[in-house]
Amino acid sequence: MSTTLDKLKSKLYDVNAIVAAITIMDWDQQTYMPKGGAEARAEHVGILSRMAHELFTSDELGTLLSQALKEVDPATDEGAMVRVTQRDFELRTKIPSSLVEEKSKLSAEAHERWVEARAHNDFQSFAPILERMFEIARQEAEHLGYTDHIYDALLDQYEEGATADDCVRMFETLKANTVTLVRNIQENGEPIDDRVLYGNWPEHKQRHFTEVLLHDIGFDLDRGRQDTAPHPFCTGWSIGDIRLTTRFKDYLGSAIFGSLHEAGHGMYEQGSPMAWDRSPLAGGVSLGIHESQSRLWENIVGRSRAFWSRYLPPLQAEFHELQAFDLDQFYRMINKVEPSLIRVEADEVTYNLHVLVRFEIECDVLTGALAVKDMPEAWNAKYKEYLGIDVPNDANGCLQDVHWSMGSIGYFPTYSMGNLLSYQFWTVLQKDLGDTDAMIAAGNFEPILDWLRTHIYSKGRKFTPKELVLDVTGKTITADDYAAGLNAKYREIYRI
Amino acid sequence: MSTTLDKLKSKLYDVNAIVAAITIMDWDQQTYMPKGGAEARAEHVGILSRMAHELFTSDELGTLLSQALKEVDPATDEGAMVRVTQRDFELRTKIPSSLVEEKSKLSAEAHERWVEARAHNDFQSFAPILERMFEIARQEAEHLGYTDHIYDALLDQYEEGATADDCVRMFETLKANTVTLVRNIQENGEPIDDRVLYGNWPEHKQRHFTEVLLHDIGFDLDRGRQDTAPHPFCTGWSIGDIRLTTRFKDYLGSAIFGSLHEAGHGMYEQGSPMAWDRSPLAGGVSLGIHESQSRLWENIVGRSRAFWSRYLPPLQAEFHELQAFDLDQFYRMINKVEPSLIRVEADEVTYNLHVLVRFEIECDVLTGALAVKDMPEAWNAKYKEYLGIDVPNDANGCLQDVHWSMGSIGYFPTYSMGNLLSYQFWTVLQKDLGDTDAMIAAGNFEPILDWLRTHIYSKGRKFTPKELVLDVTGKTITADDYAAGLNAKYREIYRI
Repeated sequence: MSTTLDKLKSKLYDVNAIVAAITIMDWDQQTYMPKGGAEARAEHVGILSRMAHELFTSDELGTLLSQALKEVDPATDEGAMVRVTQRDFELRTKIPSSLVEEKSKLSAEAHERWVEARAHNDFQSFAPILERMFEIARQEAEHLGYTDHIYDALLDQYEEGATADDCVRMFETLKANTVTLVRNIQENGEPIDDRVLYGNWPEHKQRHFTEVLLHDIGFDLDRGRQDTAPHPFCTGWSIGDIRLTTRFKDYLGSAIFGSLHEAGHGMYEQGSPMAWDRSPLAGGVSLGIHESQSRLWENIVGRSRAFWSRYLPPLQAEFHELQAFDLDQFYRMINKVEPSLIRVEADEVTYNLHVLVRFEIECDVLTGALAVKDMPEAWNAKYKEYLGIDVPNDANGCLQDVHWSMGSIGYFPTYSMGNLLSYQFWTVLQKDLGDTDAMIAAGNFEPILDWLRTHIYSKGRKFTPKELVLDVTGKTITADDYAAGLNAKYREIYRI
Repeated sequence: MSTTLDKLKSKLYDVNAIVAAITIMDWDQQTYMPKGGAEARAEHVGILSRMAHELFTSDELGTLLSQALKEVDPATDEGAMVRVTQRDFELRTKIPSSLVEEKSKLSAEAHERWVEARAHNDFQSFAPILERMFEIARQEAEHLGYTDHIYDALLDQYEEGATADDCVRMFETLKANTVTLVRNIQENGEPIDDRVLYGNWPEHKQRHFTEVLLHDIGFDLDRGRQDTAPHPFCTGWSIGDIRLTTRFKDYLGSAIFGSLHEAGHGMYEQGSPMAWDRSPLAGGVSLGIHESQSRLWENIVGRSRAFWSRYLPPLQAEFHELQAFDLDQFYRMINKVEPSLIRVEADEVTYNLHVLVRFEIECDVLTGALAVKDMPEAWNAKYKEYLGIDVPNDANGCLQDVHWSMGSIGYFPTYSMGNLLSYQFWTVLQKDLGDTDAMIAAGNFEPILDWLRTHIYSKGRKFTPKELVLDVTGKTITADDYAAGLNAKYREIYRI
């Protein structure tokens, strides 16, 4: 029995080594690589990706996997490892290579067309290729298989077991609560002036301040580091080597909340058991659970009054412009709500409404209820309805995201799942730990991190995301905790 | 015909991609990797090294290579590519895997023993394992094959075609000239006081100054970069992506001459034709030729009076402590000659005497004329004879270098070859270009770099090192130019 498993593990370590190489090359490309390195980097990554794919989808590995599935006890760690490997194997082998290749070629072309279309604010020039991309997504869904809704097959790639029905349920609650809350804030809320947060902040001071935050909340800088990149991200190739990036902009919150967000991802990755290093069990279990951790540290901890009761004085010591403002003013500024056109710039309250628009449109196009050419009209109507704003053009409307041009259809809801789950987990955490505000205000993050490590991080990929959520919170994903949390927080902030 | 060659090239690109991955992992380990990443890094590099070795020494590649050897015209670039691939293939396949494995295991153990022995100044505890390492080297030499001297087979691995006889000839001239020059300097030279070069120099100022130098001499920072590492090195994975490192120490020359040295290696690598990128023809042809370029830029250009006539004023502007000294004083300081115990800290004049000691000892141990256990005695006697100094202990004597513990026997002479060749190439360059001092003093390095590109860098690995030296200088490697250059330079500096 051990022979099959040992052989399988050994093959998986090989695949992991190549994937680690690709990942470090990608990290380097976004942080330190000189521009002259781009051409060879693309070739190297292309070759290594082919090797990893060939090795992982080989008949030899497939045979070992089938044998192992029969031999191991599913309740053990090794059983779980075989199960997640089987899932990864199926995701990579169920879709025929011809379709994978077609999608890969179309993506390259679609990405260029999308960049042009956005630059020229010309959705119709992009529509035909986007139509083909949705058609490929439909075919992928058929190959992957589903029971109820075509969307389920696509979403499952990013969030195992999640369904369109889950999304409909969660967005129903979200829509009911958030649309009203946003209207209330706009109509009756006491306005917030956050102009002081925009300035010319010295980079080395921002870097130093964010590194203090990383250290304090518990991101282990002996097992990771933070560098600078145009777009913040978290990556890694070992539980002992997790890399974050942040960026320094004129908005002071950009680096601070970017760092806290990525550190949330990073601490999740650092929290896998070392015995699982380089194996399929290490790391985060799904995009939604991952995002719940980045959002928890960014928003629930990092945008709390307690947090800034501790960190506003040192921030003011570094950035004198802030000394004219007290804790209450600062707390309101970093939680300003304002319906806007662009998802990636959205605040915590309006963010999910952006996602809702995309989810509904994806469903309608996939089922044929909406033609791609009519997408702008549908998009703009929904922005008017949910966010109360007029979309002036498609560049700032339905052309703003890169996802569809890459064929990532069914991906968006995981952002909202992360938001909901951050509050859903936090509600339980708070019940268990008691006065978290006092801990945060004292800079005592260890009990919080410990709780998350015990209940989430140390589980790695051992359970499915649905099992994990049920196990930790006693219920399936829900918008209730999120809606309650947001209402309490923002009604107080906006005095409504 | 094109099919064989295309298949071969494609296989070589695959090997190159894995080697690039290993190289970037190694660069990262020495520059940015947090300590927690070490364990997984060793595993990843181990796995990738095995993959690269298996792919490169596969029967499939061997067959393609034999066919290609018959099909391509040796006078063409493709013929040269096949020739160097054949050489690399033989170096990796002639030695049986069992011996490779034995050496690999012994190296790991020997390295640890060496570290301990050096720490406890206890050569005899290291002697038995070193004896085994020399025995493995003897066996390697037999597998690789040689005509005249067992040393030839070992040296050839690092410097194609170079022989013990070449070394004997070059060291004869060197010894005759250098030993006398060093004695003369010690007995009759006007002493040099360089204490001002040791201080607490701010790192960011050192970094900035070295980056200006890199830019000015022509290291292309769009196709490379400089980072910090404990030991300076140059590496790369594409002609468009060459990485240097430097270090910042209390000796101001450490960063400056370290950067110039590595930039010499780097500009050589950057100078390969882009069409050869990722192929076996790109890069430096041998360790000796590579070292000739680092030494040329470090010593001949970088330690010249002309160079500092341009760069002393900006250096003084950064580091005020130097303002009390004029060009002549500064020039003498950075060229101070002092026989010392440690090779890596040796000046330009005494450096080769350190190498000579090692070369003679390697030969004697390999042929059985010297027993390993008697090495310290031989070492100390030679240091007394050639450098005029007493070795107080083995830690600072025959235990100082890492090379033998890794089984790198036959490597040392390439350092001296680099020194000799730097002057040998420079003599021709100067004849071709005329007043190089005027160019250097004007910061006009382009003609010098262009000459080196044309005659050396653009040749990559197309010719053997011996062919290249003969083609560029009209003669085989000789110590004449070096001895003449050093005598002229240092007799003037020491006023003897």
